[in-house]
Amino acid sequence: MPGSAPDPRFRLSPDLALALAEQYGTPLYVLSEAHLRARIREYLAAFRAVAPNSRLVFASKANSTLAVLKIAHQEGCLIDVASEGELRAALLAGVPASDCHLHGNYKTMPELAFAFAAGVGEIVVDSFAEIEAIAELATAETPPSSLVAEALGLPAEVQVRCPDLVIRVAPGVDPATHQKISTGQDDTKFGFNLSDGSAERALLRCLELKLPVIGFHCHVGSQLLDPEAQRAGGEAIAQFAAEMLRRHGFETRVLNVGGGLGVRYTDADNPMPIADYCRLVVEAMRAPLEGTGLDPTLMQEPGRSLVAEAGVTLYRVGVIKTVPTGEGRTRTYASVDGGLSDNPRPALYGSRYTVLRAARADGGEPVGGPAAKYTVAGRHCETDKLFVDVDLPADLAEGDLLQVLCTGAYNSSMASNYNRFLRPPTVMVREDGSLAPIQRRETYDELFAREILPSL
Amino acid sequence: MPGSAPDPRFRLSPDLALALAEQYGTPLYVLSEAHLRARIREYLAAFRAVAPNSRLVFASKANSTLAVLKIAHQEGCLIDVASEGELRAALLAGVPASDCHLHGNYKTMPELAFAFAAGVGEIVVDSFAEIEAIAELATAETPPSSLVAEALGLPAEVQVRCPDLVIRVAPGVDPATHQKISTGQDDTKFGFNLSDGSAERALLRCLELKLPVIGFHCHVGSQLLDPEAQRAGGEAIAQFAAEMLRRHGFETRVLNVGGGLGVRYTDADNPMPIADYCRLVVEAMRAPLEGTGLDPTLMQEPGRSLVAEAGVTLYRVGVIKTVPTGEGRTRTYASVDGGLSDNPRPALYGSRYTVLRAARADGGEPVGGPAAKYTVAGRHCETDKLFVDVDLPADLAEGDLLQVLCTGAYNSSMASNYNRFLRPPTVMVREDGSLAPIQRRETYDELFAREILPSL
Repeated sequence: MPGSAPDPRFRLSPDLALALAEQYGTPLYVLSEAHLRARIREYLAAFRAVAPNSRLVFASKANSTLAVLKIAHQEGCLIDVASEGELRAALLAGVPASDCHLHGNYKTMPELAFAFAAGVGEIVVDSFAEIEAIAELATAETPPSSLVAEALGLPAEVQVRCPDLVIRVAPGVDPATHQKISTGQDDTKFGFNLSDGSAERALLRCLELKLPVIGFHCHVGSQLLDPEAQRAGGEAIAQFAAEMLRRHGFETRVLNVGGGLGVRYTDADNPMPIADYCRLVVEAMRAPLEGTGLDPTLMQEPGRSLVAEAGVTLYRVGVIKTVPTGEGRTRTYASVDGGLSDNPRPALYGSRYTVLRAARADGGEPVGGPAAKYTVAGRHCETDKLFVDVDLPADLAEGDLLQVLCTGAYNSSMASNYNRFLRPPTVMVREDGSLAPIQRRETYDELFAREILPSL
Repeated sequence: MPGSAPDPRFRLSPDLALALAEQYGTPLYVLSEAHLRARIREYLAAFRAVAPNSRLVFASKANSTLAVLKIAHQEGCLIDVASEGELRAALLAGVPASDCHLHGNYKTMPELAFAFAAGVGEIVVDSFAEIEAIAELATAETPPSSLVAEALGLPAEVQVRCPDLVIRVAPGVDPATHQKISTGQDDTKFGFNLSDGSAERALLRCLELKLPVIGFHCHVGSQLLDPEAQRAGGEAIAQFAAEMLRRHGFETRVLNVGGGLGVRYTDADNPMPIADYCRLVVEAMRAPLEGTGLDPTLMQEPGRSLVAEAGVTLYRVGVIKTVPTGEGRTRTYASVDGGLSDNPRPALYGSRYTVLRAARADGGEPVGGPAAKYTVAGRHCETDKLFVDVDLPADLAEGDLLQVLCTGAYNSSMASNYNRFLRPPTVMVREDGSLAPIQRRETYDELFAREILPSL
């Protein structure tokens, strides 16, 4: 079709799929280093083109394998962490704590203490209770916890500086996305509402406590294909920044509009081009600042849109079964050797995916011939429908390899051991074409390591 | 209220809740040994009272901690395993393989070989491909895999006997339950349909291959509060057994009606009493057999209904926040220190739970005073609403402990490391009141053990 862009999602050639399955087994997560780096560069360049004073923050919950964190940081991203565990992941990946931003609607005191001791660059403040907890840590005469310092190999008398604080604002924007991943409306556990004055009170309390507050943050939701919500969110926090300057003389140095740009799970998903998106959110944040003299660093926090399309999952087809569904109709189930333990998103969010035959069991050409409808089911002991009514070749056979596109985000990071399945490895296809496992397959020893059998 | 039964769900006293939180931290899964044993005994007695020739099979996917498996077996249950991992769990718990039944819509060849080598008592056969795979293993001159034997500490020349086979039948029953956990309708990945003759062909193929087929199985769904589907399923497989005797002289020795009896997640859930339920399914299976001379062992496969109500999850309340929701209304969020990583069921199935204040932070009486509506949110970096609009004391405060009832099933077995959270421990309250951890809290070393950071 003239003028249509090539599909931007990473996918495996039949030979590579066969080689990966042979060497590492299935199910298998595969991630393209080249795709990930190129996508980050594209996003950074697009953002800088419209906002030279800007930073990209990688939302590590999307994929916190250490290799991904290291690559994101190498390419110039800061790292958004939402727990002590994610912060530890970043540190293990070699990211300086000063390049990490700590998020969370309920940061526990030990978690905050750990972040202080590690020296995180920024805390995105989420509640009044958290402001008080931070003030307590910031003014403590001794480090938050010598245990924490010890765990990090720091001297127990380490000087602890309060991280920069950014106030998370709930801008009252209701995005057109799935209810479970929308967070920008008034009715949210996250942040301080604009509409009831909470956000302003939070700023004043930080200033009163002389905490190093530097700006505002919002995140209106995830996998948004219509960017109106992000535009409105960016505009709202910029307006708020202008107002806080006018009313309290507060000089905003950072505005962070969060993430949320959607990806192409299926061909029906058509996210705005990154360059257009960056222009849109930057213009939304800039307009209210005009004439104020404010020139904050603008930030975005993409996760999914950087890493999802760089990844695929490889499954092997097992049992194929055609069953009656009433009135003379049938459905064909193709069971694969994974399921909701390696990809809970269809069950959690009703997510749809693009599924392709990656290779035939016999090594023949994977495509060609007529298509038929299949329901790809996992092998968990419940319904576990992964991909309903997808088109696959009518001669799909046991032993064939399927690749599911766009699984680089929220797959390995959400995996479980349900039904005592071992979690799959992640293999990175390096830029030179070589293969590097970045997360190995779990072992049964690991699976049972936490069990304690008392005398019964 | 005169005549109302006491709530049969295990719950913690304030003192015990405080002691557990102090000693093991939160979030914490707690399981009552006495409750679990009493429930299994109740179920066994009720089943035997109406069917002396009967066996109970514990569906281990509900909770496969080794201690639970061992207790279920000690009390007289066989163990239903749905993967190599669940079979290994049973073996590690000291359950003989001969007391394990292997389930699964797609049993891989290595998994079947492992089950053969281990000597599982029964395989619940699910597809024609599986019948051929079993025949291959049953007639192999050498053991399926000397590696498997070695892994089990068996001599490589171990004699492998084909396990008894039970044919899983899809009886065409559509239960009134959540779509994701219903499996008995025609349109299912599981088993052989009655309506299109598949079940009969499966039997004939097994007989032709001289495989040791002994009966039929069905499972129509989970968390069923109206038992009509199980009744219909039991009747359908018994009618089928009678028909197979008449048409092919096949003598059914086992009929297994699966599980599915619901539990009391909230007070609105009102499952049929176990004794009534057992009578109902036994009568359903018996009626079609009358006059046939068949007297099969009747089996049920409960999981959730044995272990769910024996367990609670203990959380600590963190941030409490009241936000505007429009038109002058508000919502109060109480964030706790767990979330969808330790209980994915609200996000997966929209499940509701009973949430109680287990203890005040200050040790005062947890109940009393007026109630208010709260939305209990997890601390994951997404919406992560756990329990929406539940009643809790209006003076709920940071540091208070909440207990969520009925979390003994499908919580620890479905837990993940999302947001790099460590999975909680499970502590068993022993019959003598002592505390025994049966699954310890995960460590950060374990969390990162599978990571490999290549030179980047």
